[in-house]
Formats: sequence, C-alpha cells, structure tokens
Amino acid sequence: MTAAIRYEHIKTCQQSGARLGRIHTPRGTIDTPVFMPVGTLATVKMMSPEELKEMDAQIILSNTYHLWLRPGEDLVEEAGGLHSFMNWDRPILTDSGGFQVFSLSDLRDIDEEGVRFRNHISGERLFLSPEKAVHIQQSLGADIIMAFDECPPYPASHAYMSDSVARTSRWAERCLEAQEQGTPSQQALFGIVQGGEYEDLRRQSIDDLISLDFPGYAIGGLSVGEPKSVMNTVLEQTTPLLPSGKPRYLMGVGSADSLIDGAIRGVDMFDCVLPTRIGRNGTCMTSEGRKVIRNAEFARDFRPIDEDCSCYVCRNYSRAYIRHLIKAKETFGFRLTSYHNLHFLIDLMRKVRLAIKQDRLLDFREEFFEQYGFNRPDAKNF
Amino acid sequence: MTAAIRYEHIKTCQQSGARLGRIHTPRGTIDTPVFMPVGTLATVKMMSPEELKEMDAQIILSNTYHLWLRPGEDLVEEAGGLHSFMNWDRPILTDSGGFQVFSLSDLRDIDEEGVRFRNHISGERLFLSPEKAVHIQQSLGADIIMAFDECPPYPASHAYMSDSVARTSRWAERCLEAQEQGTPSQQALFGIVQGGEYEDLRRQSIDDLISLDFPGYAIGGLSVGEPKSVMNTVLEQTTPLLPSGKPRYLMGVGSADSLIDGAIRGVDMFDCVLPTRIGRNGTCMTSEGRKVIRNAEFARDFRPIDEDCSCYVCRNYSRAYIRHLIKAKETFGFRLTSYHNLHFLIDLMRKVRLAIKQDRLLDFREEFFEQYGFNRPDAKNF
Repeated sequence: MTAAIRYEHIKTCQQSGARLGRIHTPRGTIDTPVFMPVGTLATVKMMSPEELKEMDAQIILSNTYHLWLRPGEDLVEEAGGLHSFMNWDRPILTDSGGFQVFSLSDLRDIDEEGVRFRNHISGERLFLSPEKAVHIQQSLGADIIMAFDECPPYPASHAYMSDSVARTSRWAERCLEAQEQGTPSQQALFGIVQGGEYEDLRRQSIDDLISLDFPGYAIGGLSVGEPKSVMNTVLEQTTPLLPSGKPRYLMGVGSADSLIDGAIRGVDMFDCVLPTRIGRNGTCMTSEGRKVIRNAEFARDFRPIDEDCSCYVCRNYSRAYIRHLIKAKETFGFRLTSYHNLHFLIDLMRKVRLAIKQDRLLDFREEFFEQYGFNRPDAKNF
Repeated sequence: MTAAIRYEHIKTCQQSGARLGRIHTPRGTIDTPVFMPVGTLATVKMMSPEELKEMDAQIILSNTYHLWLRPGEDLVEEAGGLHSFMNWDRPILTDSGGFQVFSLSDLRDIDEEGVRFRNHISGERLFLSPEKAVHIQQSLGADIIMAFDECPPYPASHAYMSDSVARTSRWAERCLEAQEQGTPSQQALFGIVQGGEYEDLRRQSIDDLISLDFPGYAIGGLSVGEPKSVMNTVLEQTTPLLPSGKPRYLMGVGSADSLIDGAIRGVDMFDCVLPTRIGRNGTCMTSEGRKVIRNAEFARDFRPIDEDCSCYVCRNYSRAYIRHLIKAKETFGFRLTSYHNLHFLIDLMRKVRLAIKQDRLLDFREEFFEQYGFNRPDAKNF
C-alpha cells in the first residue's frame, strides 16, 4: 500500500535554506511551512471549525491518548471517524500518544512490548503498544498518523537514550507492520526521530527510520525543557539527513521565534497548544511581542489587540472590551484571545512562506525579531 | 423630545387575541412577539454577535447594574457606547438595575431617595436612584432603557406592595424627568408595571404609568417564584389595560410555555437567561421537550440535538459529540448547547408570529405543548 500523501518541493530560500512546499493529501493540499492548531479532544479549544477555516487553518492535530480515554476510538469510528465526529473536512494529524504517556502519567513501566501506565483521569491501569497506537489511529481515521515512540525526559544519559532510540526504531517497524495488517486506508504513517541532544543517536535514529521508508518524518524529543540553542543545533544536525522528498514535522513547537528558526532549518510542519493556552490566560501574541491583555494598562485602550493585524478580532474588538470580558471571566473573551493567537501564528507562517519565495527569510527573521522584542537584552524565552 | 421608537400593530390573532406587530427603532425593526437574548456583561454568554445574527436575534438585552459595576458606564461611553463596545449594531435594551439590586444584594436599604446596598462582588457600599439609573443607561446608549423600580419579593403583603407601587410610580416620574434633563437622545424609556398578584395594585400601577405616557410598558414582578397560573392571571388582568399602540414587555420570562402563554395574553417582548444558563449545564430545549445531553443515554446517539431543527448546531453536530465535549468540559460543547437553545426560542417566536398571522395560535399552543410534554401528567414546571 502506498501512502496517499505526497510532498511537493517548490523552492529553497537562497538566503536561509528554508523549504517552500506543498503536502498533497486526500483531503486537500497544505502549504508549507505550516502551523497546525491542536484539537486535543476533537475540538480546538474555544474555536468552531468555521473559525479555523476563516483564519486559514489548513490542517489540525488531535490526540490519540486523550481520544482513546474519552470518548473512545470505537465511538469515534462509529461516528464515521474524527472528521465527521468533529465537523472538520480538512486534513487531520493524530499523534500516537507516546508523548502523553510519558508526560501525563507518573506511574509507567516500559518494556519491549509497550508501556503500562495509569489513566491520568481515572487511575485505571492501561497498556499502550505500537500496535495498539496504530489501531486506535486507524479507528480515528486521521490523514496523517504517528508512530508510537518513547519521548525520554530532558536531560537523559547517553546510555539511556541509546537504548531508547533502538527501542523506538523497533517500535516504528512494528507500527508499519500493524498498519499493513490493518484495514487498507489512505493514512500516512510518519516515523519519529529521537535521540535527544546526542548527534550520533539522532543520526542512528534517522538511519533506522529511513530504512523503513516512511512517507514523512517527525522530529520528537525537543521543546521538552532544553534551551532554544540546543533545539536549533539538533535541527541543524537532523534535517539535512532527512530525505528531501518527504515532509518534516517538528513536534510541540509553537513560539514565534522557534517557528521561524525551525523553518530556516528545513522544517515543514509545527504544532503547539501555546496560542490557545496563553490565550486562555489573557495573553496575546502581537507584532510587538506578547501583551497581557488582562493587565490594568489596557482598561481604557480602545485600540485592537494588534494594530498590524486584520483578523476578525482586531477588526471588531478593542483591548478594553476584551480585558473587560476576561476580568469578568466571560468565555467570549477567551474565544477572542484564542482566535487572535491562532490567527497570529497561521499568518506568521504565511509571511514565512512569502519570505522564502522572495529569498529573504533571514531578513524577515531579523525584522520580526526586532519588532517582537526577541533582540532586547531582557527578552524572555518566549 | 419624542422617543424614536414606534409600535406598529399588524394584526390580532382571531383565535387567541395575540398581537402581531413591529417595533421600529433607529437601529432597525423588530418583529413581535420577540424573544431577546440576554447579554448581562456586554456579551451574550459564549456567543459572537455574528452567531446571534445568524440565528436571527433582532434585539438583545444588557444589564445596567452589572455594567455599572464593571467595566463602568463611563468606560462604555468612552468606547462609543454599548453597541460599539460589544460590536452589536442591532437594537439593545438595558434594564434599570432594579431587579439586580433586589435579587443580588443581601444588604439593602430602600427609602424615597433610592436604594443603598453593597456591591455583590467587592462588598463596596453603593447607591442607586432613579436619576442614577437613567444616567447610567444614557451613558450605555441602549435603544430602549427601563425605569428604576422596586421589584418586591414574592409573596409580599398588600400593604407592602401598595407602598412599593406608589414609590415605583414616583420613581418612574423621576426617571422621565432625569431623561429630559440629560443629553437629548433617541432612547425610549419604558415604565415598569408592578403590583404583584394584587389586581387593584396592578391597575393602580398602570394608571400611574399611563398618565406619564411612556413609549412602552414592561410588566415586572413576575417570574419571581409564583406559580404559572398566577403569572397568567396577572397578565390577563394587566395587558388589556395597557395602551394598544405601545409595546408590552414581560420581564425575565423564557420558558417555552410562558412565551406562548404570554403572547396569547398580548405580550410583545420577552427576555430570559434560561436558554444560555441551562445550555451551560448541558441541557437542551427540543421540540420533544428538554434533553439533558450530558446523560449517558446520548453517548452513542449520532442524531442531532433536535431532529426537527435546522440550526447550525443540528446541521453539523451529533448528541454524542456534544455530550463528549461537555463531559470533557470543553467550552465548545457549551457554545453549541447555548447556540441551539437560543435558536430554539428565537425560532419558537417565529412560529408564534406565523400562527398569529394564520389565526391559529391556540392550535399551535396545543400541538407544541403536546409534543414538548407540557400536557403529560408528570410534566415539570419547565
């Protein structure tokens, strides 16, 4: 069975080396580099599918682990799959549950077969394996699914990481076999490169996965607490080794600087809960950096969140109104901040694609970083 | 100064006596009888203005008391008024704060001048009077504003109610004077009929208010705990005494049966938080009665909330999906139930208007009550 997705390379930015491309899927074409909003429980928090389309979300992500626990993949399958269940007809990517098993569960026991752990809601004992993760994802019916991997903590010793990478490679092979034995489908299964900050292990991981010939490759084990410089170094050591004809997906990354820096290092796809999570705390991303809209300084500020933004929120609502809603704990306020932040990152990627086209992504990076405040001596690790 | 609103009577239902009409306002025409969604804090909870328009909300209500406390009427005025602040260009009605002063505040002290009470959020001591209530409403800039009244508890003695009605009438006159002394505007100030369940006092209240010649009249002091039969009796004693050329507004009523029964008794306008409040508890209004969508029976029910409904929610989402969202405490679930319930009541009033046009509102009532379950022996006081 051949996967139904295909990566089309359009051009490489002569200034930065970033890739402009398209991923063709059975549910439409995705312009890359792309940011994917996260819909953990079959909903991008606060947003309707129509709003996501209005802000030009091309693909969204959903979570195997969470949907397995509730409502259960069998129920989603009975509903006609995730697209039908949640009223989203564009592409969906589901992660494998690997990251959640390791980040949400205190009690876990890893062996060659898989992982035993406790349900983070009910405490019930559960078991997840490569076969089980693929089976669940087949029931959910996303367009792109992920291999089940171990996401080791940061930092981890070279010895631990070496064993972990070898197991993740064996698990990747089992995922492919499970997919082939399952109901034939048009799902594309991506392998996940691990290896932490160890160049030799990243190389090993890539060699293992390439030999299995996945239709796409994710880079996992980053954005887990390491400094940004480590992330960039790992990307520089990793992406040149990946096949140029397949998409590359950097998992769990959504800060503006990392999206740009990732694109410069040849990444095509990103996802993160950051824009909706900080939106629900009353924080907005703007062209001038983050603004904590709930702060008193915005009480009588009748300008839009971002004067350079043309999104639905910035066209219709003021900082003062949104602050009022947030102070009064009115949900609509969090809808507006979530909408704006998602639009901000989706629009940022549009600008990144344009800059690649114009061979000026490094210039764009410099301008954006300067205006956003990343170049200030007191710049936080946004 | 003449108020800019005008009631146009189209026809009376020959079967029921209900009125079909239109209220012409500077911000558009309202078909009556009408249900007005409540946007307490300058937002109809969970809903965007676009969604309210999509479900054909013709006018919304907002709350003087709440907006006075936060963000403050001066801030709203500085924003260009409530319409501009909340991005709603159709008519708005603001209540006077009378009801909230009496329902939210434990500590209150009424005298001829006004009411001293404590802010229900901060505990701060505050004072509200007829003049202050009108002044706040002028700053907010709604199209229809309400006189400041006392809303006595149910039950109240005849002696208490008699004094209260007399004071509410004196306050009504002071509201008119305050309006005339304020900045000239196109706001229509409605008087509020009180008198509890005492026919003589309702009559007295109406006589007092009619002598002041308001552009519209509200019926207050109902839906405060009395049986439905009392409400219907009071309406039968009240509406025939009100001028036929002015709109009549029954305050705080939003259950399906009371909307129909109110229209039959000559009411033109209704408002209530009921549809959004029960929506946030996972309960939906349907043509077959209320459904508690969070219940286990709907876990694998892939039908829409209401198979007879054509709203956005029922066209796109299943009971199973909405139940999943609600169980997972996902806001989008409450958006969907709130949307459906508001649409249900707005659409009910459309059907009521059609039935009036066809001189068959009593037949419609019987059919609706039968299907909704109001005629069942175990029917709750929905």
